[in-house]
Amino acid sequence: MSPPPPAAIEVEAVTDTTAVTIPDPFTAPFKPNELYGRRRKTEKSQWGVAAPVNTANFQLQKHDHKPVAKRWDHRMTHEALSREGASLKKAAKYLGLPGMISLGGGLPSSEYFPFESLSVKVPTPPHFSEPATAASGTTLHAGKHDLANGRALYDISTAFNYAQGTGSAQLLRFVTEHTELVHNPPYADWRTTLSIGSTSALDMALRMFTHRGDILLSEEYTFATAVETAAPLGVRVVGVPMDAEGLVPAALDALLSAWDDARGPKPFLLYTVPTGQNPTGATQGAARRRALYAVARKHDLFVLEDEPYYFLQMQPYAGPGTPPPPPPASHAEFLASLVPSLLSMDVDGRVMRLDSFSKVVSPGARIGWVTASEQVVRAYARHADVSTQSPCGMSQLVLWKLLDEHWGHAGYLDWLIHIRLEYTRRRDVILQACERFLPKEVVSWEPPMAGMFHWLRIAFTKHPDYPAKSIQELEEEIWLAGIEAGALVMRGSWFYADKTAPHDTMFFRATYAAVPSEKLQEAIRRFGDAVRVSFGLKKMENGVENGDAGKNGSEVK
Amino acid sequence: MSPPPPAAIEVEAVTDTTAVTIPDPFTAPFKPNELYGRRRKTEKSQWGVAAPVNTANFQLQKHDHKPVAKRWDHRMTHEALSREGASLKKAAKYLGLPGMISLGGGLPSSEYFPFESLSVKVPTPPHFSEPATAASGTTLHAGKHDLANGRALYDISTAFNYAQGTGSAQLLRFVTEHTELVHNPPYADWRTTLSIGSTSALDMALRMFTHRGDILLSEEYTFATAVETAAPLGVRVVGVPMDAEGLVPAALDALLSAWDDARGPKPFLLYTVPTGQNPTGATQGAARRRALYAVARKHDLFVLEDEPYYFLQMQPYAGPGTPPPPPPASHAEFLASLVPSLLSMDVDGRVMRLDSFSKVVSPGARIGWVTASEQVVRAYARHADVSTQSPCGMSQLVLWKLLDEHWGHAGYLDWLIHIRLEYTRRRDVILQACERFLPKEVVSWEPPMAGMFHWLRIAFTKHPDYPAKSIQELEEEIWLAGIEAGALVMRGSWFYADKTAPHDTMFFRATYAAVPSEKLQEAIRRFGDAVRVSFGLKKMENGVENGDAGKNGSEVK
Repeated sequence: MSPPPPAAIEVEAVTDTTAVTIPDPFTAPFKPNELYGRRRKTEKSQWGVAAPVNTANFQLQKHDHKPVAKRWDHRMTHEALSREGASLKKAAKYLGLPGMISLGGGLPSSEYFPFESLSVKVPTPPHFSEPATAASGTTLHAGKHDLANGRALYDISTAFNYAQGTGSAQLLRFVTEHTELVHNPPYADWRTTLSIGSTSALDMALRMFTHRGDILLSEEYTFATAVETAAPLGVRVVGVPMDAEGLVPAALDALLSAWDDARGPKPFLLYTVPTGQNPTGATQGAARRRALYAVARKHDLFVLEDEPYYFLQMQPYAGPGTPPPPPPASHAEFLASLVPSLLSMDVDGRVMRLDSFSKVVSPGARIGWVTASEQVVRAYARHADVSTQSPCGMSQLVLWKLLDEHWGHAGYLDWLIHIRLEYTRRRDVILQACERFLPKEVVSWEPPMAGMFHWLRIAFTKHPDYPAKSIQELEEEIWLAGIEAGALVMRGSWFYADKTAPHDTMFFRATYAAVPSEKLQEAIRRFGDAVRVSFGLKKMENGVENGDAGKNGSEVK
Repeated sequence: MSPPPPAAIEVEAVTDTTAVTIPDPFTAPFKPNELYGRRRKTEKSQWGVAAPVNTANFQLQKHDHKPVAKRWDHRMTHEALSREGASLKKAAKYLGLPGMISLGGGLPSSEYFPFESLSVKVPTPPHFSEPATAASGTTLHAGKHDLANGRALYDISTAFNYAQGTGSAQLLRFVTEHTELVHNPPYADWRTTLSIGSTSALDMALRMFTHRGDILLSEEYTFATAVETAAPLGVRVVGVPMDAEGLVPAALDALLSAWDDARGPKPFLLYTVPTGQNPTGATQGAARRRALYAVARKHDLFVLEDEPYYFLQMQPYAGPGTPPPPPPASHAEFLASLVPSLLSMDVDGRVMRLDSFSKVVSPGARIGWVTASEQVVRAYARHADVSTQSPCGMSQLVLWKLLDEHWGHAGYLDWLIHIRLEYTRRRDVILQACERFLPKEVVSWEPPMAGMFHWLRIAFTKHPDYPAKSIQELEEEIWLAGIEAGALVMRGSWFYADKTAPHDTMFFRATYAAVPSEKLQEAIRRFGDAVRVSFGLKKMENGVENGDAGKNGSEVK
């Protein structure tokens, strides 16, 4: 994996089509609400209640010189293609006429929202820890009529009312700018829309692209919810072989090149989690992604790039006992350290990228966003208008206060660097515990480079009961032995993309995201004991192997 | 319409199957968090992060003596019936074991939610107006670890993390109790689940009950979004004739009894908005609802009862110049004044009721709830697990703080009475303006009893250009004349359930929910002028008819 060079970021003058290269916007004096002075003047009307928004207005550069995205009519469902804008919006164009009084839209008056103000206390960068926030946090305040009073661009009367399926212009501006800073999509007509999280975005994407009987491609071990979202729609998931870097492009090419129509219609939709994949923790390197994109072009695939863990990319693992390398020295160095996304390579507009605030801010916010071509984003937003209606306005207001008004892009990048270092620390704890407590003769692993998951491979063929007992039976036995010892992990078989396909591997998934270091170490110690007992290996005491297999098993009833 | 008698509410002892009648719980000393002392002790574990919940635990009475709901396997789709619980939840039952350390669920640590506390300033009952809230409101405070610290049952670390598709136990308890107080469903196994609003609930219900080619029944004028949700799914809406009380049950019976299979498969799903229907404002009386339910039983219909405007039932209209009757004197009198819901008559469990906080608290919260049989609610929640994931946790926390911790049921009913009186006032303003400014020889209306909408019938046959111009042409002409005069209303044809069916009525919809009184009056005056001009009638000046049709039209460019 080779990270992209830490190049200067090109920003174009808004009133000029000539590209202007500025040295490094991250070192320039920072104005949180003016994004290095490049924010465009935008239409006042779009900040209002349920106002429509065009996210092209928020792009910092001009993208007209880039190719236009391909059309996806040949891949999209009748359901998606047949959605027209809501008929009641036909009236909206008259709302801007001077003096017009509207008795049209059925919006309640904000007079009846029983909220006078809302406040959140949040970290003041760079003091991000819980104790630091308690001591030095900033309290952000939203009033009911801040927009009308000129105090802020977003308020309770706006955010707590109805909104568009796209979400509010306020938060969309922030995510559009963020997407451009991080990914700078290489086609002209890229757009963004908010989602209510990537679980919903996947469900909506399947309804946009698949019919009953279609096949969805994914990594051979994949997010169980993706399979469970697809199956009731009559969409079967077919897994693509993986290695330590995740999905293998050559295997995908081989699968599609030799596709036998007896298996079903040739697949055209790929669901992939390129970074810190769930459950394997695998991260596709830059070259791997370029190869994957080339295969997608060859077979005209449309790609759902689901990237909840993108900003859980960690510092390189330096090995047991070796201190981690120093953190990124600047925002530019941080961004340059990230594996380039498929979106950043997507000259065709064949990628729908799903981003989410769930892993880096709060899952309970139920706010994510989708980046794709104008055609795809429009279809998504039209569907949202008649299903999710719009993302939660309370969350949007809280996130906008935090991200745009308080932190700005620089503060948000500082936060992401903080998270990166925290996950690095946690990852290093679990790896050191695995080094110390797991029987390496039967358990092996790769150091995860991103995400929340550590993926433990079990050499099941060395089990004394193999082949008398099946992989599934042995997996269950080891899993229950872990539970008996007081350590709960997830069984790899729960993540099969296709449960009907033959499998000759055994894994367990352990997360290092949720529990503190001591518990993490203790759980790995217990799991190690359980594996030893199951395999009839010598058990450890105080980190040293001994023969008393039963001794520690009684800790948990 | 005859409201139900103001009966004492029966509450059963929790540890006893004998029904205990208590005189009037609303006059008893009120403990907001103890609901008249009847709240059950509930499992501590269900308040935690992503904890599963059984809403039967929150019911105040025993319902075992009631009939069990019918099964709906013959009506539900393969998609809905095939959904099983999320496979990763198989591990959840081990989480409660003492000493267990879980490396299972991929939940982020709340350490990385950048929120130390959240506060909202809300009205202190009974001082609900905006100025009173500014002056005397209560500030509610949620800390990050209130649950662990024993300070509250719900906090940031819980609400801002992942949750179940049902939503949190905390808010579900409130809506379950509220549903029981208001509707007391007459079957045993009724359950509730949160939704992300009724727009989503309708979309999910259609996926639960309809296949491509099916027909959805609704009022002949209906919520345009319902039609636009159904159409891309290949579901056609067929309208049932209405009168001033909304859908006519005999017409529904006739339609189904004489159903011609050439029109398509016989419909079995009815979408109805019984109270303050959008767009007509019509409210089905109690007898009308009983007749409708009988027709549903006769033809084995499943009913989607969409009731966003249920608590926008207003005081009876006393006529122009007559003061409205006094407000309800007690909570019991208020509840008794409400038209009984279909849910309250639903002995079969054939109704899925959609409730929403959008019209009475905040649309931006994106929180509603569904009440139906255990089978239907389970299918709904399983779908939510893999689509909406869960309702927004930030909203749930804010609503729980307001409704459960601060107001309690009594305070919430006080708020609903406040809203009732506010909408009564607004409705009376528009009715008086219509009496004064509309030409009654061509415009007629019924006083709305509920909701946000006033529905104006136009005697198009009296138009000088009829029948030379079609209904559609004349509707557009009048609508544009209104816009020219500076008054925007909605065209009735936008609400046709079935645009292909013949229509011989013309209506406009005006809402009295959104604008202040003076603007409401002015808009009706302008619309009246526009109608007069279009019909060639004499125009008014200062509320008196005159012959100068062009004079006031120049106010708006």
